Amino acid sequence: MARILVVNGNTTEAITGRIAEASRAAAPEGTEIEAVTAPYGLPLIVTRSDWLLSGPPILAALAERRGTYDAAVIAVFGDPALEAAKQLLDVPVLGISEAAFHAASMLGRRFGIVSFTAALRPMFEDCLDHHGLRARCAGFRMGPPDASYPAVLGAAEQERLLALVRASIEQDGAEAVILAGGPLAGLAPVLQPLVPVPLVDGTAAAVRLASALAGLPRPVRARAPRVLTGYGPAVTALYAG
Amino acid sequence: MARILVVNGNTTEAITGRIAEASRAAAPEGTEIEAVTAPYGLPLIVTRSDWLLSGPPILAALAERRGTYDAAVIAVFGDPALEAAKQLLDVPVLGISEAAFHAASMLGRRFGIVSFTAALRPMFEDCLDHHGLRARCAGFRMGPPDASYPAVLGAAEQERLLALVRASIEQDGAEAVILAGGPLAGLAPVLQPLVPVPLVDGTAAAVRLASALAGLPRPVRARAPRVLTGYGPAVTALYAG
Amino acid sequence: MARILVVNGNTTEAITGRIAEASRAAAPEGTEIEAVTAPYGLPLIVTRSDWLLSGPPILAALAERRGTYDAAVIAVFGDPALEAAKQLLDVPVLGISEAAFHAASMLGRRFGIVSFTAALRPMFEDCLDHHGLRARCAGFRMGPPDASYPAVLGAAEQERLLALVRASIEQDGAEAVILAGGPLAGLAPVLQPLVPVPLVDGTAAAVRLASALAGLPRPVRARAPRVLTGYGPAVTALYAG
Amino acid sequence: MARILVVNGNTTEAITGRIAEASRAAAPEGTEIEAVTAPYGLPLIVTRSDWLLSGPPILAALAERRGTYDAAVIAVFGDPALEAAKQLLDVPVLGISEAAFHAASMLGRRFGIVSFTAALRPMFEDCLDHHGLRARCAGFRMGPPDASYPAVLGAAEQERLLALVRASIEQDGAEAVILAGGPLAGLAPVLQPLVPVPLVDGTAAAVRLASALAGLPRPVRARAPRVLTGYGPAVTALYAG
Amino acid sequence: MARILVVNGNTTEAITGRIAEASRAAAPEGTEIEAVTAPYGLPLIVTRSDWLLSGPPILAALAERRGTYDAAVIAVFGDPALEAAKQLLDVPVLGISEAAFHAASMLGRRFGIVSFTAALRPMFEDCLDHHGLRARCAGFRMGPPDASYPAVLGAAEQERLLALVRASIEQDGAEAVILAGGPLAGLAPVLQPLVPVPLVDGTAAAVRLASALAGLPRPVRARAPRVLTGYGPAVTALYAG
Amino acid sequence: MARILVVNGNTTEAITGRIAEASRAAAPEGTEIEAVTAPYGLPLIVTRSDWLLSGPPILAALAERRGTYDAAVIAVFGDPALEAAKQLLDVPVLGISEAAFHAASMLGRRFGIVSFTAALRPMFEDCLDHHGLRARCAGFRMGPPDASYPAVLGAAEQERLLALVRASIEQDGAEAVILAGGPLAGLAPVLQPLVPVPLVDGTAAAVRLASALAGLPRPVRARAPRVLTGYGPAVTALYAG
Repeated sequence: MARILVVNGNTTEAITGRIAEASRAAAPEGTEIEAVTAPYGLPLIVTRSDWLLSGPPILAALAERRGTYDAAVIAVFGDPALEAAKQLLDVPVLGISEAAFHAASMLGRRFGIVSFTAALRPMFEDCLDHHGLRARCAGFRMGPPDASYPAVLGAAEQERLLALVRASIEQDGAEAVILAGGPLAGLAPVLQPLVPVPLVDGTAAAVRLASALAGLPRPVRARAPRVLTGYGPAVTALYAG
Repeated sequence: MARILVVNGNTTEAITGRIAEASRAAAPEGTEIEAVTAPYGLPLIVTRSDWLLSGPPILAALAERRGTYDAAVIAVFGDPALEAAKQLLDVPVLGISEAAFHAASMLGRRFGIVSFTAALRPMFEDCLDHHGLRARCAGFRMGPPDASYPAVLGAAEQERLLALVRASIEQDGAEAVILAGGPLAGLAPVLQPLVPVPLVDGTAAAVRLASALAGLPRPVRARAPRVLTGYGPAVTALYAG
Repeated sequence: MARILVVNGNTTEAITGRIAEASRAAAPEGTEIEAVTAPYGLPLIVTRSDWLLSGPPILAALAERRGTYDAAVIAVFGDPALEAAKQLLDVPVLGISEAAFHAASMLGRRFGIVSFTAALRPMFEDCLDHHGLRARCAGFRMGPPDASYPAVLGAAEQERLLALVRASIEQDGAEAVILAGGPLAGLAPVLQPLVPVPLVDGTAAAVRLASALAGLPRPVRARAPRVLTGYGPAVTALYAG
Repeated sequence: MARILVVNGNTTEAITGRIAEASRAAAPEGTEIEAVTAPYGLPLIVTRSDWLLSGPPILAALAERRGTYDAAVIAVFGDPALEAAKQLLDVPVLGISEAAFHAASMLGRRFGIVSFTAALRPMFEDCLDHHGLRARCAGFRMGPPDASYPAVLGAAEQERLLALVRASIEQDGAEAVILAGGPLAGLAPVLQPLVPVPLVDGTAAAVRLASALAGLPRPVRARAPRVLTGYGPAVTALYAG
Repeated sequence: MARILVVNGNTTEAITGRIAEASRAAAPEGTEIEAVTAPYGLPLIVTRSDWLLSGPPILAALAERRGTYDAAVIAVFGDPALEAAKQLLDVPVLGISEAAFHAASMLGRRFGIVSFTAALRPMFEDCLDHHGLRARCAGFRMGPPDASYPAVLGAAEQERLLALVRASIEQDGAEAVILAGGPLAGLAPVLQPLVPVPLVDGTAAAVRLASALAGLPRPVRARAPRVLTGYGPAVTALYAG
Repeated sequence: MARILVVNGNTTEAITGRIAEASRAAAPEGTEIEAVTAPYGLPLIVTRSDWLLSGPPILAALAERRGTYDAAVIAVFGDPALEAAKQLLDVPVLGISEAAFHAASMLGRRFGIVSFTAALRPMFEDCLDHHGLRARCAGFRMGPPDASYPAVLGAAEQERLLALVRASIEQDGAEAVILAGGPLAGLAPVLQPLVPVPLVDGTAAAVRLASALAGLPRPVRARAPRVLTGYGPAVTALYAG
């Protein structure tokens, strides 16, 4: 039975609740989900510097629970702390944008990315480049740059997003579409019956892929102990070896 | 409980047996594996034209069992018939090189590819390009172009492959290494304790990732019926809608 | 005197007639054209799985006439069976999209691709990636995704295509434009007087380039005989060495 | 008169001293250099997770001196905190690997990267990809993966590095060579008379390019105040607007 | 005190005057600017063949003043003669598009390119590819292909260009914008207060970056004397060694 | 009957003789070859600045014979003047490296490049990038950087080149090999019987492809007359419209 730790990098507990729910809905039978909130940082991660500053608290959340999970998911589009966590931990760690890109690539030749606001596009492009999957991306379809973030999407907003999904399929040739960004969580199963290509939700994809990778053999890595200052006990201990 | 159909594109039954064993060893608990052999084609797929000609029999094997599985794996490095199967079937279909590339990418920033003989390199390169993951590849380390294919790898061969794996890690900077090609099946768990990065076996990766994707929502696709001639009843029926 | 075999991968004889006519019109003086129809498969190849399933009958058509031609053209946009044919035959084999991309690249720095319907775009993109010439492509200009395929283009359709060609030149900066897809065959010479950049027809380009390559020295390749089952006598004999 | 703040992301004061010296030697006349040490983190940054954890202290060092400099340099190969600093500060901020790549690109068509140990290669590759200049890189020439880091390079080590530089030029076709990694600081002027292409030192390049960019017009950016928790007063204030 | 030679590749003296003014406005304190006009060629360089034919006169202008400058700038967007000048001269030589691309890359993750007329786009794309920075480019926003070139931009034209800059930022996600092409010279400081990202002028960027590079160590290159015929004495002497 | 003008960009008449011979040997029946020597420039083009300075005399050679040929070949590896000639002339113009890259791409999935000396590699890499075919290149195999250029290759040199060709095929996976650089002209037919993949000679490929393209429809381009100074009457007249 795999145990998966899902870390919400935002400090907002309500978001953790929604992430936990989505994770449990997607988890394979027999998988145990624990969802935790970053101990400090930003209520809502939206910019490039947010990515950096939410990294150490995400790492702290992972370090504090070390040994209690078989795989971990960093539930922030943009994958803060991802490479550090992959290096420091002995279990698979997946970011939700990483998972969305890989899952979408396996489900269609080219994937579109749909989101609420064009303000996130630069961060999404960074992320796509970082994971080396730009050639698999058919393009972005996003709402206006100044769109606000409603906690719950109403019918009108769903309609607008559906139009973006259709433009991605019909005009960009997308064969799978990623619904990206917090406010779209939970939307994939709602819109899926209305569209002819797979809709990919990052959290659902990450939980399932993390569970898959948790079952593969992994190396025992010896790390030389190192001295780290200025961070809390869990991260410092992780460095101490 | 997910049912996964694993298709051996080679017509050699003995290979199907080994693939079935490796698949069952890697499958998540509660997953049912059925392994089948391509009904016609080549005893051992090794060239580019083999890829084409093994495609229709692989599709036939998939079509004949339609409705009896939740996801499928095409167990031939090079992924023959993959895109056609993804398009025609309503369940996720993964190739073992596709799965190896994606799993390795999630386990390390750059992956190396190790195999028995350099004769396979052109096909592996095609495959890497097709899946758009070349930038994640740290390079190839392969045996001589005229190496033969032993059914079972002896100690001397394992030692040579281990040296290739180490060169991939130390000289190419690989952070995960794919062991590619039939004769290397089953080698990953044997060598894993000796190396500090994840070793990825395509069949194991494919079975686990296929199981992961089988649990995600999927579209209902309407396809116009089409007339196909010259193929057996199962493939013809698949086309008929 | 070069003899060129042109294979229509569609099973529709009327298309073969049009291809033969276009090939003869483009052939260099003293070149002999034979056009043949795939013995089985699809009446009209339009999807990714069509590409796979039209491959073996195209190979059969090539194998049956082995020794009677100095170069061959596969006259289906998307180039089914191309890599297998290149490997198995001792004469140059060109696909019409391959030929269009290379000819257009030699005639202008960046080429546009114009076609009747956006439904073909994913296949064209695959093809562009396969041949590694994406950086030379200025973009696609295509009709609506649900456009049907008239056998003969009327004045209104020509006008619409001309507008797409002009958009490709003026807005995308195309310096050559490929007219892609069966229904556009024969259109290049009609529209050429109206536009200031070269218009490239795949069949014409393929016939001329195949004739050019047929005159270059070529290796004698020794192939080990191999056993293939489930295919007709000509393809099986090709494998037997 | 431009004032440039140079931040040593390592917590080792001795390194700051060497960086200050190299910066002053390279600075344009009339430029004032202040070199500071990161307030917490790692004595020596060498791994991917070090990059993340040295980010916030680098940002703190930059935030604490806000208003006292016209441009800043992050003097760690790998450019930790770079994108966050660029976003949060109203003056140009350069990383030393970024500066080395851009300077080398302007001095030669393809640059080689030479360093003491192959252990750094994965981080350097990440960095090269992040800045999008891989196509300008002719390749890496590095010492053995387990090489240690002497504080001062002896004659034997200089000879070995010179051999790597020559291999980069003669075998890889490098037209400029970057000497990367802390222990190589100060080596460029020593070896330059012995080689026929420019040798680029990241710190020197960064100080000069930062000074150049400091003189260009820059936007006044309005940022909405945001709440950040868990960080020191300077970084928190930077977020508060 | 650095001396920078700025070469106007167009034979129009009035343009040289404007370039000299812009160069002096951007030059670091203590830098001496000499601006010269190409001795022959085209009054206004606008096409690909213009680039070739303006190359030798630019080289002549550089050769005639050899020894009187510490760095040189070729003030034509498209960088004619750039690679030849870099090879033949012992001081840094920068083109204004090269400088704009590198400066913009250091000031933002992705830069937009704005210009008066889409007619220049093919040349700008060539240039972007040549310098290997396409991945850093967020896209082009340009006026109509048949726009003429006013000597002085009126308010209406400035308004139209401002709209293109805003589209580049808001729709393409540009984090820095290059104002490209002669008629836009001097516009960056005028529009900068109206937009939230850095506006980059090629000439200003080139003068500052050339000054920065002039201060770095450089190799002494021995060149074998070579015989060149058909060119003026200065270029011939440059070849003679 | 097509007439092809082949321009030797080197001023050495003996090279023109060899080029003429190779061109006639490769020309399709009924094609007329005229080979001419650049009127001024360099006896032997080997560096990047040579490319620029040999451009105008090559253009002059083309301009002087305007109207007497149906296609032209620029017989210098590196393709000087190519883009200008394509723009200014109303017939197809091919460079020999362009032709070699395209022909090799149509004859094999990945081509190797073999030459006498590594000193040419930077120029060949530029050329490969310019034509956008890097992804089709399996790598370079070249002699030592300081190799001299014998007029005629002796048996020992042929043996060394054959070893490079074999390394390209066996170690790099090349499926076609380009023999590049003047001294290797005429070698392809000699070595072809000894190797199992096509050997491509640039001049032969260019003559055949130019002949092929000459038969395709081409646009009538209207060019506005322009004033050019400092060049001879033929080039000036070409600009005058």
